[in-house]
Amino acid sequence: MKIRILTEKEIRDTISFDHESIKAIQDGFSQLSSGNATLPPIMRIDIPENNGEVDVKTAYIKGLDQFAIKIAAGFFDNYKLNLPTGSGIMLIVSARTGNVEAILLDNGYLTDLRTGIAGAIASKYLACKNITTAGVIGSGMQARYQIYGLKQVRDFNRLLVFGIVSKEVDNYVNEIKKDLNIEVIKCDTAEVVVKNSDVVITTTPSKKPFLRSEWLHPGLHITCMGADAPHKNEIYPEVFGIVDKIACDSRKQCFELGELHHAKNNEILLDNKRICELGELINGKYPSRESGEEITICDLTGVGVQDTQIALLAHSRSLKNHSGIVIDS
Amino acid sequence: MKIRILTEKEIRDTISFDHESIKAIQDGFSQLSSGNATLPPIMRIDIPENNGEVDVKTAYIKGLDQFAIKIAAGFFDNYKLNLPTGSGIMLIVSARTGNVEAILLDNGYLTDLRTGIAGAIASKYLACKNITTAGVIGSGMQARYQIYGLKQVRDFNRLLVFGIVSKEVDNYVNEIKKDLNIEVIKCDTAEVVVKNSDVVITTTPSKKPFLRSEWLHPGLHITCMGADAPHKNEIYPEVFGIVDKIACDSRKQCFELGELHHAKNNEILLDNKRICELGELINGKYPSRESGEEITICDLTGVGVQDTQIALLAHSRSLKNHSGIVIDS
Repeated sequence: MKIRILTEKEIRDTISFDHESIKAIQDGFSQLSSGNATLPPIMRIDIPENNGEVDVKTAYIKGLDQFAIKIAAGFFDNYKLNLPTGSGIMLIVSARTGNVEAILLDNGYLTDLRTGIAGAIASKYLACKNITTAGVIGSGMQARYQIYGLKQVRDFNRLLVFGIVSKEVDNYVNEIKKDLNIEVIKCDTAEVVVKNSDVVITTTPSKKPFLRSEWLHPGLHITCMGADAPHKNEIYPEVFGIVDKIACDSRKQCFELGELHHAKNNEILLDNKRICELGELINGKYPSRESGEEITICDLTGVGVQDTQIALLAHSRSLKNHSGIVIDS
Repeated sequence: MKIRILTEKEIRDTISFDHESIKAIQDGFSQLSSGNATLPPIMRIDIPENNGEVDVKTAYIKGLDQFAIKIAAGFFDNYKLNLPTGSGIMLIVSARTGNVEAILLDNGYLTDLRTGIAGAIASKYLACKNITTAGVIGSGMQARYQIYGLKQVRDFNRLLVFGIVSKEVDNYVNEIKKDLNIEVIKCDTAEVVVKNSDVVITTTPSKKPFLRSEWLHPGLHITCMGADAPHKNEIYPEVFGIVDKIACDSRKQCFELGELHHAKNNEILLDNKRICELGELINGKYPSRESGEEITICDLTGVGVQDTQIALLAHSRSLKNHSGIVIDS
């Protein structure tokens, strides 16, 4: 069997935020909501003695020649070894023969990218068309990718940021100022960020809610992408009771792993019909933002169709570029 | 990150049936039955339009520095493309950091080997010490690996074989004669094989039972390894009602996927205490064969601890041999 192997650098040189990568993820959500994707439950291996977990995600989109299987790890003591917390690889599997055709040694880059793109799609459909100020809570990798993504779909010239590690926030401010050439302001509280932004993205691994309903204001859109496990929670459940529109990547998954899970446990959101999936916004089954006054929110937990779509695009581009090496196994 | 990549040939040169590989699988079963393994449910992606399925299996054995994740495919129309039905790769993941440390492009070889070794272990504990005749139903890859495995633990000079594709059985007979230098006899029915063998191994993908209770005789041991999905079935349920000892690789899995599942559905085997796991035989919690008259049976469905153990051994030997290539991703 011949297997193509791509390194992180080769993958980064091949794919980033662009029209085609955003469209690929959008198509993935669309297929998921149309019932055209096979999405097995996430496989999870916990290694509590090393404060780590390994997740396997996959999705097969019916009719495609290939699909991806992703192995992604989070080991939260890795900083003691000077290693990044997250890592991962993706496999491209033929849906015609079952053979593994390529291995993408992306070290989690494609996950960062597809997650940032999901945020961009949420804002594309739900944020006001004209905004001036974006806000972000957290200063890690997704605080970067979410803002790069947002910049693809909305123009803004000011970014407010709040994070708990002051030095990391300083690095973040300098980096984004340079990369996006916009004003970036470090704020003292999450409240200041939320009250003064048109779009807010929460990107923290918080286990306790911090974003309060009192901070909401007309026209605000919030994307919350920190909670991807039942014990994580950024948004007070009451928020879901008072916003005008609620979206999510996957109803099933968000009610198990995301903010919707906490809202439901607190007896908010009893009417499922109020909640749409991104794919249903894309397919026109639910309306996008309808006025400058609406308050909207989107809960993201990350679904396998994103992995399959971003990996297939990276792979097809690598074939055109003849990048990577081919091993005859 | 540095990732070692090994090809099938390099893996075949590194590991086969030997004292250490059998011990590794035995230790895996022992740890599983002692409750020291984390064994998430199998992840399965069905591609019915191409008559295929992809399974992901894994197991973490507590205290080990690494574990394996296996991606294995079975595409039953591949013969039309002149490709083998089965394929697969294994990943070695660090249990300390979550990083993928090696990729074993074994094309399913390690699965064949660890499955053959499981059969060898079943016969080691359950077959009579002195046997002359072994029997096998089926003439595919596992009809080979099960017999190579059996030869590691029992001496026999005659092999009876029955299979439904006459030409394949002829090839099988010639191959085993040459490889093992024993008498190999093609039989006209499964009944002849079972009635005249001391140990019988069933290796078919049959969806209907064929091995009947009337064929059993004192001293017989049967290993049935064909059924690894709920719709597969080789052994008539009544057999489980009359044998003296019943073993399996994993009670939980065999009651979902194996022969035990059909026996239970037919209201045989109501007493779980009669059924032991291989690990419990190894750990001495249940007795092995106690007389030359007992009739014994072992149901194998394949568990992730086997994959982790065989992959870790192959990987550690490859490090000693400096085999494979290392990619800096």
